[in-house]
Amino acid sequence: MSTSSPPECLPLTDEDLEAFKALFAASSAIGATPSGGLHRLAASREDGLARDQLCDWLREQDLEVRIDQAGNVFGLAVFDPEAPYVLCGSHLDSQPTAGRFDGAYGVIAGAVAVASLAAKLRAESIRPAFNIAVVNWTNEEGARFQPSLIGSSVFIGSMTAEQAWACRDLDGIDLKSALQDIGYLGAEPVRLPLAAYLEIHVEQGLDLERRKAAIGVVRKTWAALKLTLEFEGFQAHTGPTPMPERRDALLAASRAVALVRELADQHPGRMHSSVGRLEVYPNSPNVVPSQVRAFVEFRSEEPELLAETLSRFEAQLDRISQQTATAYRVIQRQLREAQFLHDGLARLAHQACAELGLAAADSTTIAGHDAISLSKSGPSMLLFVPSRDGIAHNEAEFTSEAQLLDGLRALNQLLYCASLGHGGLSAGGAASTSGALQ
Amino acid sequence: MSTSSPPECLPLTDEDLEAFKALFAASSAIGATPSGGLHRLAASREDGLARDQLCDWLREQDLEVRIDQAGNVFGLAVFDPEAPYVLCGSHLDSQPTAGRFDGAYGVIAGAVAVASLAAKLRAESIRPAFNIAVVNWTNEEGARFQPSLIGSSVFIGSMTAEQAWACRDLDGIDLKSALQDIGYLGAEPVRLPLAAYLEIHVEQGLDLERRKAAIGVVRKTWAALKLTLEFEGFQAHTGPTPMPERRDALLAASRAVALVRELADQHPGRMHSSVGRLEVYPNSPNVVPSQVRAFVEFRSEEPELLAETLSRFEAQLDRISQQTATAYRVIQRQLREAQFLHDGLARLAHQACAELGLAAADSTTIAGHDAISLSKSGPSMLLFVPSRDGIAHNEAEFTSEAQLLDGLRALNQLLYCASLGHGGLSAGGAASTSGALQ
Repeated sequence: MSTSSPPECLPLTDEDLEAFKALFAASSAIGATPSGGLHRLAASREDGLARDQLCDWLREQDLEVRIDQAGNVFGLAVFDPEAPYVLCGSHLDSQPTAGRFDGAYGVIAGAVAVASLAAKLRAESIRPAFNIAVVNWTNEEGARFQPSLIGSSVFIGSMTAEQAWACRDLDGIDLKSALQDIGYLGAEPVRLPLAAYLEIHVEQGLDLERRKAAIGVVRKTWAALKLTLEFEGFQAHTGPTPMPERRDALLAASRAVALVRELADQHPGRMHSSVGRLEVYPNSPNVVPSQVRAFVEFRSEEPELLAETLSRFEAQLDRISQQTATAYRVIQRQLREAQFLHDGLARLAHQACAELGLAAADSTTIAGHDAISLSKSGPSMLLFVPSRDGIAHNEAEFTSEAQLLDGLRALNQLLYCASLGHGGLSAGGAASTSGALQ
Repeated sequence: MSTSSPPECLPLTDEDLEAFKALFAASSAIGATPSGGLHRLAASREDGLARDQLCDWLREQDLEVRIDQAGNVFGLAVFDPEAPYVLCGSHLDSQPTAGRFDGAYGVIAGAVAVASLAAKLRAESIRPAFNIAVVNWTNEEGARFQPSLIGSSVFIGSMTAEQAWACRDLDGIDLKSALQDIGYLGAEPVRLPLAAYLEIHVEQGLDLERRKAAIGVVRKTWAALKLTLEFEGFQAHTGPTPMPERRDALLAASRAVALVRELADQHPGRMHSSVGRLEVYPNSPNVVPSQVRAFVEFRSEEPELLAETLSRFEAQLDRISQQTATAYRVIQRQLREAQFLHDGLARLAHQACAELGLAAADSTTIAGHDAISLSKSGPSMLLFVPSRDGIAHNEAEFTSEAQLLDGLRALNQLLYCASLGHGGLSAGGAASTSGALQ
C-alpha cells in the first residue's frame, strides 16, 4: 500500500530517545522498592497507576487507546482501517520484589517506537502496508494470578475472558474484580487482525553478555511443563499423634520438592526444574499439615526428555505417597511446547541490526514470554537485550541505558520494515513459519 | 479458714450438668464448621463472641469478671480478699478447622464448676481456705500468633505484656490491636496469688481409651524444643537461571523437613517431630524462593535425646546449606523442659475420682497446655478425658457427653477439695513439688 519507495530507515531522533528515558524512569517509580527494584503485581494499585501513565502518554501521541475484556491496553496508529496490524509490546506487571526491566522495558520501548514511527510515517506521507500498535498484556508474570500469560492467551483465543476472570489470587480476589477496581476491565474484545507481533525484552540469561552481542534474535523456545500438585494428608496434633500414624502432606510435598531438583540434576544443561510456590494448610506450627499445593515446573528443549522425566516423576510420587500415607493429584497440567519463532522476522531483525551497526546473535528463550503465546497464532519475533550476570526476577536485575537504547533502535527499525510488509509477512499472517515443534 | 467441718462432697446437681451442656453447645456454635468442628482463631471475631458469651454467663452467676493486659478473662468467686486462689480454666481459641473440645471444654467445665461450687459454699456457709476462679487464657494454640501459651505465659511473668502485644499474625496484625478490636485488651495486669491451678482437657491421645479410664491424672510432661529456622537463598527466574547457580531456599527447607522426620524415626516412641508451618517468599510459581521460614518441633521425655538430636540436626543443616548454596539461621528457639506436675494435687485427683467411682489412671502429656506454663510458678494439675481414636487438631475430634460430664464431676470435686486446702497446698504455693526435670 506504500505510495512511493520509502527510505531504508526512519531513525529515532534524540527527542524520541529522551522520551523513552523519561517514560521509563517515570514508570519505574511506580511500585519502586527501596533497593532499586520493582514490586508491581498484576492488577494491583501500582499496576493501575502505571497503566494510567502509559495511557495518558499514548493519548498525547495521538494514538487510539483501547482496553479489552482481559484488561490488555492497546495504543493504535491506524493508517488503513481495513489493514492488519504489526503489534508490539510486553507487560507492565512484575514479580514480587523484582527488577525494573522485565516487561516494562518492552512496553515502553514499544510505545515510543510506535508513536515515533507513526508520526514520521505521517510526516513523510508514507502509507505503510500495515497499521502499527503497542500493547500492554495483563498478568504476564503469573505471580498474583495463575497461569502466567493470561492477557496474551485471551487475545489469541487459547483462554476465554471468563476463564481469565475466574483466576483468583491468594486472598481470593478474582481477576475480574481486580481489573474493575483499577478501571481496566474493558467491555468487549479488541479484535485486531495481526500481520506480526514484535516484543523486546531483557534476556534474563548470560548468553548475550558472554558473546558480546547487543541484540539477541530469538529463534526458538524451550518447552515448559507446569504442574500444580495437591498433596492430601490428615490434620493432626504435632505433639501426641504417634509418628507412624501421621499422614503429613508437607512431608510428602517436601520429598517431592527434593525429587523435582534431582530429576533435573540428572540432565545438566538439558533440563531446568523448580518448585516456586507451596501453599500449606492449615500452616499452623502445632498442626500436621493436611493439604499442600506445589507449583512444579520442568523445562527442556527436548520434548522426549520432558515426557520421560514426567513419567519417572509420577512413578516416584506414587512411592512418596505410599511412604507417607498421603494422596496426591495433579490439579493443573500445562504443556507449553517448544517452538520456532518466525524465520522471516528473524532475518529482518538481523538486517535491521546490521543497518544500525548493532552486533546481533541468534538466541533461545527458556523463559516464557507473550511473544511465545502470540507465535501460536501468527508471525512473531522476540528480541533480547543483555542482562547483567543473567540476574532476573530479582531487584538486582540490570541493563544499562545504552543497551536499552540500542534495543529500542533495533525494535524501531524492525517495526518500520515489518510495517512496510518486509520479512515475508502477508495480510493474514499466512506466511508464518511459526508453529509447535514435534 | 473453714469455720466447721465441711462435707466430703458438694456434688453437681442436674441443673449444673444442664447448664454445662447448654453453655458448651452455645459456645461450640460460635465458629462452628460445616463438618462439626470449630474454627476460632485467637482474638478473631469468633473468639470475641465466645468470650462475650462466657462473660455474660459468669456475670449471671455473680462472679466478678476481670480482663488483664493479655486479654485473659477471669471469673472470680471471692470469699476472703486476702486469700490466694484456686484457679481453673483453659482456652477458647482453636486451631484452624479443628475440634470443638480442645480448650473450650476446660473453660466451660471450669466456669460451671466454679459457679456451682461458689453457690454451694455460700448456701452451706462454708468458708473455703482459698478463693476460687475460672480463667480463659489468650492464644494457647499458637496458630494465629506465635508462640503458643501467650496468655498464661504473661500471667506467670515468663513473657511481658509488651512482648505478647508485639506478636503478629500472617497479615501483620499485632495481638494488641486484635485484642482491642474484640474489646478484650485489659488496662492492667490481674494479679491473683495462686494456691493452685487446675485444668481439664481432652487427652488428644489413645492411652485412656486403651486403658478404659474415665480420667487421666497427668503426672509428667514431655519436653518440647521449638525452633524457627530461616533459610536464605537468592531470588531468581525459574526458567533461564542455570541449575548450578540457583540458591533455592525452598529446596533447602524441603530437605530440612525430610530430615526432621528422619531424626524422629530413628527413635520410635521416644521422639516426635514435625514441621507444621512453612512461610515461603516470594511464593510465586516462576521465582526461585529466596526466603523460607520453617517452624520445627522436636518432642521427647528424654532431655539428653533432645540435646543429641539437636546437635545432629544442626550438623546436617550445615551440610544442606553447603549443598544448596543457601544460608540458614535459627531465629527463635524455645525449650519447654520436661516437668512433673504437683504430687499432692495428683493424689487429691485420684481420691476425687475414687469418691465419684470414676476409673482414673496416671497419664503423661506430650502436648503443651496452660497447666504446664502454670506449673512453673506453683502447684498445678492437668486432668484428661478420653479422645476417640486420639484424634486432635482436627474437626473429627470427639469426646462423648457422658465422658465430658464425668470429667466435669472430677474437676468439681478436685476444685472443692483444693479450695479447702487439701492436697498439701499452702497459701503461697510453697509446698509445690513441681519444677523442671534435670
